[in-house]
Amino acid sequence: MHAVKVRDIGEFGLIKSIQELVNRCVQTSEEATFPLLLGIGDDAAAWRTTEATELATTDTLVDGVHFRSDLISWEDLGWKAMAVNLSDIAAMGGSPIYALVTLGLSPETDVEDVHALYEGMISACLQYHCRIAGGDMVQSPVTFITVAMTGVAGESVLTRHESKPGELIAVTGPLGCAAGGLQALLQDTALELEQSRHLYKAHNRPIPRLDACQVLVSCGVNAAMDISDGLTDDLSKMCVSSGVGAIIHAHHVPIDSLLKAAFPQTYLQLALNGGEDYELLFTGNEEVILNVIAELGLHAAIIGRIVAEHPGEVQVLDESGVEIQLNQHGWDHFK
Amino acid sequence: MHAVKVRDIGEFGLIKSIQELVNRCVQTSEEATFPLLLGIGDDAAAWRTTEATELATTDTLVDGVHFRSDLISWEDLGWKAMAVNLSDIAAMGGSPIYALVTLGLSPETDVEDVHALYEGMISACLQYHCRIAGGDMVQSPVTFITVAMTGVAGESVLTRHESKPGELIAVTGPLGCAAGGLQALLQDTALELEQSRHLYKAHNRPIPRLDACQVLVSCGVNAAMDISDGLTDDLSKMCVSSGVGAIIHAHHVPIDSLLKAAFPQTYLQLALNGGEDYELLFTGNEEVILNVIAELGLHAAIIGRIVAEHPGEVQVLDESGVEIQLNQHGWDHFK
Repeated sequence: MHAVKVRDIGEFGLIKSIQELVNRCVQTSEEATFPLLLGIGDDAAAWRTTEATELATTDTLVDGVHFRSDLISWEDLGWKAMAVNLSDIAAMGGSPIYALVTLGLSPETDVEDVHALYEGMISACLQYHCRIAGGDMVQSPVTFITVAMTGVAGESVLTRHESKPGELIAVTGPLGCAAGGLQALLQDTALELEQSRHLYKAHNRPIPRLDACQVLVSCGVNAAMDISDGLTDDLSKMCVSSGVGAIIHAHHVPIDSLLKAAFPQTYLQLALNGGEDYELLFTGNEEVILNVIAELGLHAAIIGRIVAEHPGEVQVLDESGVEIQLNQHGWDHFK
Repeated sequence: MHAVKVRDIGEFGLIKSIQELVNRCVQTSEEATFPLLLGIGDDAAAWRTTEATELATTDTLVDGVHFRSDLISWEDLGWKAMAVNLSDIAAMGGSPIYALVTLGLSPETDVEDVHALYEGMISACLQYHCRIAGGDMVQSPVTFITVAMTGVAGESVLTRHESKPGELIAVTGPLGCAAGGLQALLQDTALELEQSRHLYKAHNRPIPRLDACQVLVSCGVNAAMDISDGLTDDLSKMCVSSGVGAIIHAHHVPIDSLLKAAFPQTYLQLALNGGEDYELLFTGNEEVILNVIAELGLHAAIIGRIVAEHPGEVQVLDESGVEIQLNQHGWDHFK
């Protein structure tokens, strides 16, 4: 009999099996100093101290898997490695505090490039009030950057498992630009200067929505996550966590005019399935969502509704209410 | 002109340059929510909250660099990945709380092996009251395991920069067994069963000295680190941090009788330069150190003295007081 490979069960199958393994074992363990609020399965871990809710998250970029060193500068790569973690803190409704940086490097790496990488990380830290407090440097045949980040949140933390039937689904900004940027880079697509600048930037220097997450928290949103693997894919994870289904209206998904102009045939596909935009996806009752949209302004949009039927499934409808079959799924690290 | 490579300046040169880069930039940043006590350069980062001193550390094992998958079981590898981080928390005088686990894996990895890896990590967590709270799984052409760990300490944290001239230098237990185990595995050395069991175990399932560190703290030790890269190498790092020199007496270094029997020619070399024992190295005044040794018992030992001369340098003397020239240096990830 052939052994089951990671490829066979995929990233989420593997995470689920490990979550079970970890949870089965901790039941025999004594109560921790700081009680755990959220463990494996959300954008960050969260625990309570007597004074705060503390957050911790980690995200890794591997050369040839998450980036190509010939398509991104070291400085942008540093920014991005920090931004994807900052985005996880935003997805919890928190504020970042400290980062630990692990670099896996070949000894043949130019020191200047490592410094540029740090310049990018430091820029993101300065902009979002985080600080590099430590880390590890290791030799590795493949370059990788792992950031582990701590943060704090107030009483209410945004989680993936609190979406309820009837709630509206919304996003904090336009989707698809990062995927458009990646596609243009990979296929060397001819674009106008304004388009390429905008799309490359969306892909290489994503903006963690630490501003928007505070609006979500103050308006009373409970359920949110960041869009890293693509709208439909991430929404389906939220649906699985919450035990609900979702219907989204493709024509309500906010899409940038530069993306439409650059990819007139495929912009919808990019917006629905492309990842790495790092906008926040959130749900709430009508009053809450309307308040959020009013505060966030122009680019945020209501895109659908949570339903009780078909838990874990996301249905995408076109303008006439006909279901769109998505011919490409989101990102699975192992499939 | 040829660009300066990471290989040229080595791990510690690189860390130093990055430490400067990070520190230069944070001066313009505002004060963090939790003030930083220790940043880059110690075994863990430390910051103060109103109720505690919190710790965070990270350590990575890369296939072919830190381990060879043909020489260690997945379960032992999991134990070790957790233990090296637990040891960093011990080196600060703290207690572990939560771990985030990042796995870089090929899709062709057997799921059973990943589960065995987690079983090993969970064993170490259960034994030392830590808990896996999250992490990340990524595809990677080379297997790597990064653990980021949080912990808490009381008022006094053990640091590398508090060794003072005149203080005694001591270690919590015998050195060299882990390096002996590695050498036996690499060279397929013929050993007696009891020897091989002991030495392989020392290498594959190191014991973080979370028990001993509490003795250090309660007796009033201020300066400590864990021995991961080898005694002389780690002691010289402590000397650099504290701006002092050190003299150690080779015949006082505690060495296991099984190691001596297995490597009668090279045991001293293994004990002085071999890494990965994860015993604690610490300094303090005579009264403090004698109390610690009395409490730790048999295997702990006083091995030398901190001096004001030759800051950053470690001098090793033999029984007749003649300096031993070390023909091998400690571990540098990039040299």
